[in-house]
Amino acid sequence: VGGELRFSEFFSHGAGLTTSLDALLHCEHSGIQHICVVQSPVFGRMLLLDGMVMLTEWDEFIYHEMLVHPALFLLPFPRKVLVIGGGDGGTVREVLRHPSIEHVDLVEIDPRVIAVAQSYFPTVAAGFSDPRVHLHHADGAEFVRSAPSGFYDAVFVDSTDPTGIAESLFGEAFYSECQRVLHATGVLALQSESPLHPVYCQTLPRVHRLLRPLFRHVASYLASIPTYPTGMWSFTLASRHYHPLEDFSPTDAQQRIERLSGKLRYYTAELHRAAFALPGFVQELISEGLAQPAP
Amino acid sequence: VGGELRFSEFFSHGAGLTTSLDALLHCEHSGIQHICVVQSPVFGRMLLLDGMVMLTEWDEFIYHEMLVHPALFLLPFPRKVLVIGGGDGGTVREVLRHPSIEHVDLVEIDPRVIAVAQSYFPTVAAGFSDPRVHLHHADGAEFVRSAPSGFYDAVFVDSTDPTGIAESLFGEAFYSECQRVLHATGVLALQSESPLHPVYCQTLPRVHRLLRPLFRHVASYLASIPTYPTGMWSFTLASRHYHPLEDFSPTDAQQRIERLSGKLRYYTAELHRAAFALPGFVQELISEGLAQPAP
Repeated sequence: VGGELRFSEFFSHGAGLTTSLDALLHCEHSGIQHICVVQSPVFGRMLLLDGMVMLTEWDEFIYHEMLVHPALFLLPFPRKVLVIGGGDGGTVREVLRHPSIEHVDLVEIDPRVIAVAQSYFPTVAAGFSDPRVHLHHADGAEFVRSAPSGFYDAVFVDSTDPTGIAESLFGEAFYSECQRVLHATGVLALQSESPLHPVYCQTLPRVHRLLRPLFRHVASYLASIPTYPTGMWSFTLASRHYHPLEDFSPTDAQQRIERLSGKLRYYTAELHRAAFALPGFVQELISEGLAQPAP
Repeated sequence: VGGELRFSEFFSHGAGLTTSLDALLHCEHSGIQHICVVQSPVFGRMLLLDGMVMLTEWDEFIYHEMLVHPALFLLPFPRKVLVIGGGDGGTVREVLRHPSIEHVDLVEIDPRVIAVAQSYFPTVAAGFSDPRVHLHHADGAEFVRSAPSGFYDAVFVDSTDPTGIAESLFGEAFYSECQRVLHATGVLALQSESPLHPVYCQTLPRVHRLLRPLFRHVASYLASIPTYPTGMWSFTLASRHYHPLEDFSPTDAQQRIERLSGKLRYYTAELHRAAFALPGFVQELISEGLAQPAP
């Protein structure tokens, strides 16, 4: 006898993540998307956009650390950073840990995501009041088209799935603009979906196909993110100058980790190299995609 | 209007994995546990023991490859192997890929698991008819007590969670017997639960506490297994002789991978080293556990 509040996200044919809920804290339609905040006994507060988990208090550290630090520790002295999407602030928070950072542009299409994150996820949206951070309520693809060439040391694409409003952030034209706004030694880092997802597994090979003509070095790495579909998540780094592994110095990274503000919980200098060692089936997924004709 | 067949496994407070089902293929109580086989549109056939996912056709290759190959590629010429649990046959299948294997003892407490696996998971239970394999319907802890000293090159503990019938497979006495039945250069490999699990995250540090007095080298590694609780899974290797990384030769492993029967989908020689690079919070979990008094 009695009811239960429950959230489930299906990544395919009714399969996915489920959790009971203690409370529904917030729900609105921003004009762009449904934004909900719910409280789960295991995952803590969860931010849902159009019914999909964007972050949970429990495991957001893995996603944000692994999107940001492989790129920033590859650069000897990152100063100027562009974050596309990432209105929750987690990516900006990780960027700001690096003492060399002078300027961060965050481009979020939906200002309500920022406002909701500031209200409900203060430890995630922690960096928005930092004077180095400049918020832009704009479409990411449009913003990058009007940004100056060679300006950024790092560009992070912290997007939702490659459909709907985020579709343009997975296209050739967008990547080409990202390359243009990056300094010659700059690095592009993006989330490239799960290699086990029945549909979005094609994102990873597609990203390689589109980035390789633009960047000398393109390499992907994985992290385990429990509340994202399948829990096996890929990220991709691209640079015209730096090789993600050969130009990475674990001793330099280790010294810099000790000087970061705050403490990392997932990323380590050793894990940087290790994360790029891909399982056989992921290597094949990428090679097969590269062998196909352009999309 | 209409019903839906659905399976959900909660690892804590109503949080976990969920999937719609196409069919319930088999359900019985063996006298020891409930054994069910269900068909999921995404995960394929799933083996459930007492309502917990033991394997799915979709991702069992990750668990079985990662339990077996790090240990066997560390040994130059593995011949005699003991598998405790693992009645589905996946571990034995991976062991048999190595051409040097001469003798495999599989000790499964519940013969019905073997029978159900043979009926419903023929590609997993593939090795049971191999003349090198000897099936024993016995309690794993008892079997190992009566096994001869120094006999095995590798012991695999392919157990369920550390509770109920599997509890004895996570105890000091059992590990001590495992050490005794191993050759001086032998390797013990076991699944050590998820470092993100609210309760069983304590298994990993406990395993280190118990194994370190018995083995010179104890090291853990991770793999991403979507249908296991949290999807982030740990394994632990222990050996009196071989260091899991320093004594591992990627070139030797690469040559041997090419001579294996069948094709690996997850394990690679590069991934062997990489998997031992643990996220910061997992390193801390292990160190904090070692600093505590014995359980």
